Amino acid sequence: MTTFHKNIPLDKRIIFALDVETDDEAKKWVEDLDGQIKFYKVGLQLFLAGGFPMVEWILNRNLEVMLDLKFFDVPQTVASAVKQLNGRGITYTTVHGNDAILEAASQAKKDVRILAVTVLTSLDQSDLKQLGFQCSPEKLVLSRARRALELGCDGVVSSGLEAPKIRHELGQGLFIVVPGVRPVENRPDDQKRIVDVKSAFLGGADHIVVGRPIKQAKDPAILIQTMQGHINEALRLRSA
Amino acid sequence: MTTFHKNIPLDKRIIFALDVETDDEAKKWVEDLDGQIKFYKVGLQLFLAGGFPMVEWILNRNLEVMLDLKFFDVPQTVASAVKQLNGRGITYTTVHGNDAILEAASQAKKDVRILAVTVLTSLDQSDLKQLGFQCSPEKLVLSRARRALELGCDGVVSSGLEAPKIRHELGQGLFIVVPGVRPVENRPDDQKRIVDVKSAFLGGADHIVVGRPIKQAKDPAILIQTMQGHINEALRLRSA
Repeated sequence: MTTFHKNIPLDKRIIFALDVETDDEAKKWVEDLDGQIKFYKVGLQLFLAGGFPMVEWILNRNLEVMLDLKFFDVPQTVASAVKQLNGRGITYTTVHGNDAILEAASQAKKDVRILAVTVLTSLDQSDLKQLGFQCSPEKLVLSRARRALELGCDGVVSSGLEAPKIRHELGQGLFIVVPGVRPVENRPDDQKRIVDVKSAFLGGADHIVVGRPIKQAKDPAILIQTMQGHINEALRLRSA
Repeated sequence: MTTFHKNIPLDKRIIFALDVETDDEAKKWVEDLDGQIKFYKVGLQLFLAGGFPMVEWILNRNLEVMLDLKFFDVPQTVASAVKQLNGRGITYTTVHGNDAILEAASQAKKDVRILAVTVLTSLDQSDLKQLGFQCSPEKLVLSRARRALELGCDGVVSSGLEAPKIRHELGQGLFIVVPGVRPVENRPDDQKRIVDVKSAFLGGADHIVVGRPIKQAKDPAILIQTMQGHINEALRLRSA
């Protein structure tokens, strides 16, 4: 492993998912987490509530934003949508799709980074079969990630299970963002489909997206500190 | 065939695609088409420019809106997004996805109708293979449409080629919206992947989505009149 961690500071390793109904709730969370977390995910729910004014409110506080709208439309439409995101100071946006869609998105972007959604974490193998996919999620994710990079995407959204293979096969340059991470360490009897924070970063994640565990914690500040401790540890091991 | 055409007036059969960069352009088109077309599609590009204020501007003129954002995210997020659309007077919205996603969308909706995107018109069979699908687009579209209805969706977005089979197999109740239609009749030497207006409605479409052909017409008003003539003719034949 190399020591190249893209110099992402610890307070931007956790991307807090602002999965809330209103601007007011979102602002309250950003204010509550002030000084601890400097990166926020705005998804469909909040974007439909607050739109760009909400995104700008976050950016104006010197924080970063992942605008997670998961575009999946014909290439020309996705390109037009990505163009609407340029020049706003948004760090990442997300795109599904086939080669033509990912290529259109990559060509349309200027400052915003394009992350390809390799596979939704809520889809398991039986869902994939129902959708008509014949191969395993792992193979699908790796082949999609490889194509995404070749087509000019900056990285991928991937589950913690597939991240290590992607990092190993595709190198240190791409950004890997991992949602659905368990905040504390797995006990031996836990189901293995969800990785914990430390494993996610040992496996090569650049960021994790965390919402509910922090929102539901008795003391979010302490949980965040603990998670950031694990992240630090993993990053030190990775560069050792 | 039955005579049930859901009483959709002729000026709401064509949904004009407002695929433009700015609010101003969109408003100009709506004003120019005043009296001729009373149904408008707002997609990702325009929604990212104008947001709900743009949608409301259209609705306030007593026109209908299809908000075509093609949601494709985990079920909970799609449900939250759909909830943000309830009570706004939007007629249709669009959702991709697996059973869990479509079910979540259907359960979350109140007044907005959910259309399942069966397959993107820009995806052909080789794209589908590359995505890992093994069956033909036709089979995939029909099986997705059937599941979508069973899960509570109100209809589908489908190509004109698959619409007849969907209408025939799944009955008159569902809404079928067809994009990518040729405004004038096919000549014998035309490629067959795109159907013309009359064929789309003969095949069971409730609406067609048209943008570029009208925008690029020398005289949009005359083209629209011609298309509406074809629609009338097809609907008369369907109910004969």
